[in-house]
Amino acid sequence: MSKQVYNFGAGPAMLPVPVMEQIRDEFLDFQGLGVSVIEVSHRAKQFEKVLLDAQESFRQLTNLPDNYKILFVHGGARMQFAALPMNLAARSATKKCLYAETGNFAKLANKDAKVYGDIRVITSSADSNYDHIPEITSEMVDQDAAYLHITSNNTLYGSRYNSFPETGAVPLIADQTSEILSRVIDYSKFGCIYAGLQKNLGPAGTAIVVIREDLLGHAVAETPTLLNYEVCAKDNSLTNTANTFAIYVTGLVLQWLQQQGGVAAIEKVNEQKAKTLYDLIDGTDYFRGVIKPECRGTMNVSFNLSSEDLEAKFLKEAGERGLYALKGHRSVGGIRASIYNAMPLAGIEALATFMREFEQNNG
Amino acid sequence: MSKQVYNFGAGPAMLPVPVMEQIRDEFLDFQGLGVSVIEVSHRAKQFEKVLLDAQESFRQLTNLPDNYKILFVHGGARMQFAALPMNLAARSATKKCLYAETGNFAKLANKDAKVYGDIRVITSSADSNYDHIPEITSEMVDQDAAYLHITSNNTLYGSRYNSFPETGAVPLIADQTSEILSRVIDYSKFGCIYAGLQKNLGPAGTAIVVIREDLLGHAVAETPTLLNYEVCAKDNSLTNTANTFAIYVTGLVLQWLQQQGGVAAIEKVNEQKAKTLYDLIDGTDYFRGVIKPECRGTMNVSFNLSSEDLEAKFLKEAGERGLYALKGHRSVGGIRASIYNAMPLAGIEALATFMREFEQNNG
Repeated sequence: MSKQVYNFGAGPAMLPVPVMEQIRDEFLDFQGLGVSVIEVSHRAKQFEKVLLDAQESFRQLTNLPDNYKILFVHGGARMQFAALPMNLAARSATKKCLYAETGNFAKLANKDAKVYGDIRVITSSADSNYDHIPEITSEMVDQDAAYLHITSNNTLYGSRYNSFPETGAVPLIADQTSEILSRVIDYSKFGCIYAGLQKNLGPAGTAIVVIREDLLGHAVAETPTLLNYEVCAKDNSLTNTANTFAIYVTGLVLQWLQQQGGVAAIEKVNEQKAKTLYDLIDGTDYFRGVIKPECRGTMNVSFNLSSEDLEAKFLKEAGERGLYALKGHRSVGGIRASIYNAMPLAGIEALATFMREFEQNNG
Repeated sequence: MSKQVYNFGAGPAMLPVPVMEQIRDEFLDFQGLGVSVIEVSHRAKQFEKVLLDAQESFRQLTNLPDNYKILFVHGGARMQFAALPMNLAARSATKKCLYAETGNFAKLANKDAKVYGDIRVITSSADSNYDHIPEITSEMVDQDAAYLHITSNNTLYGSRYNSFPETGAVPLIADQTSEILSRVIDYSKFGCIYAGLQKNLGPAGTAIVVIREDLLGHAVAETPTLLNYEVCAKDNSLTNTANTFAIYVTGLVLQWLQQQGGVAAIEKVNEQKAKTLYDLIDGTDYFRGVIKPECRGTMNVSFNLSSEDLEAKFLKEAGERGLYALKGHRSVGGIRASIYNAMPLAGIEALATFMREFEQNNG
């Protein structure tokens, strides 16, 4: 039996225990075939069903309208930073694309896009170290633009759009990597949503891309075949050999989420989990929240102690208790607890208990 | 216990049984961490060691010179069909790139490349349904070209370069997806070799790219960051979240190969395996080999029976015996036995026994 640990890593992140056990139990014998799921052809009917079931689960969980395609695309969210303008910038005659910069990955998204279009950063919270989400008014959304790109939850800091901008006819695109399926979202308000799998969905290496059908067909010629969303849609993500393991695990995670009652149910749990930690942080000067309260999300809770030495001590003692991977991103520092859908309440309580004791012993 | 089956699938393909058992046994507890390898950060020291060990095993197994980099790149071999010209075509002032067309994937490679350069198909065996590897003389290799691309083993048919062309100063690039590490190759004769993992190395979704250092640095601006080999090399394949599971499995497969005695040892076994099947095919008119004898490889053995009905019966009865995935590629038809490094001699013998009995019962 494994020792009890809680993994607060930002991604690759912990996945639901029953899912992990099922993967192990059937690893050598998938559906009675006598071979592993990673040894089955991506064109075998057994794998095709895995793919279709995963897509159907996602569609049900999100109440996704029929005019949206669900794609699995190689390379995680970062690859989409290039794929998005390659697929969509040409919607605008001047290839004008709007970006909101609310964190490190938001910045990378517009940096990677620059070579493919006229990239406009319409707002940024860089000057205040990304401690909030600046408002986007409808006046800021140039109706000639190909799209507006936002990062709906900022992994490194824990900030989140708690309401989404009105963009008129300009498609709103959201990188949802660190919050996908953590709260109820009206997908019909978005042109495209995408997420690397490795936080709330499955293993690393692949992204899920959900895109409105009328946005397909604008890819420039230089778009690699496998990054062309129209091709991926036509081939239902099987243009080449898909990351079959990642899609299989994602399918199991989606089934698990259905068993938890769906997105609305997990959203309540997520709110309770984040509130437990933020109430503790706000109730003392000992811990200092990184993000302004009105911009906080539920997936990544970031805070500082009064010195780096104390933070190092905190991380070391937490690790000894089996509370893992609480170190903030190398570009931010401090402490970050990533508490995705799979993190149980017991993990939150273990962390909160440790935080209170640490303050008592080191106050 | 799983039933005894032999999986002749072309990829995703069977992997060595001891590797598969190890993955299962440690799936919930990687290196005593109490979490799975798919839940560990790609920047954790434990995963960094997995990556470095895999690279070192590959280097040892191939006697790879020090001036070659080993990269893990998203998207499998197909993604490299675009990445290669994006990274290398600019070595030639006119972006001239040479391609040899010896099969379906070779054709896709030059098709995907066309938008990035002046793509010249210098030879093709399409007219004879790719039944041989046409010779490439040194006169055919324009010394102004950025590179010459070959597909060293053609998965759909089973043909292989049994000797490699002399290319002078033009870098030779080989798609080795379906034969990597199946035979001893002098890597110093190549500028770049690449392979999707899902046949001889691990799970699907990622490619290994081995490239001579002096070929880095020529990528055009439109190259997506994650497909820029210079960036991948600088970041040691960790520019973004790598496909950690695929790299971990690949590392285990490479260790297993070392335990088998390395590439020279497995090459002997592979030759014996292929010879067993080809001797049977050549000894009767009942089975008809697809590839001319002098162009045969050891990884994919393709043959036909006298009618599609008989082939369908063959496939059905083989499946009932636990001999799986023998159906030829949808674009070729017939029978194909993919017998990669992990296929044991016992699997070959089981197939040969079945083939003899089938001929007796249906002759």
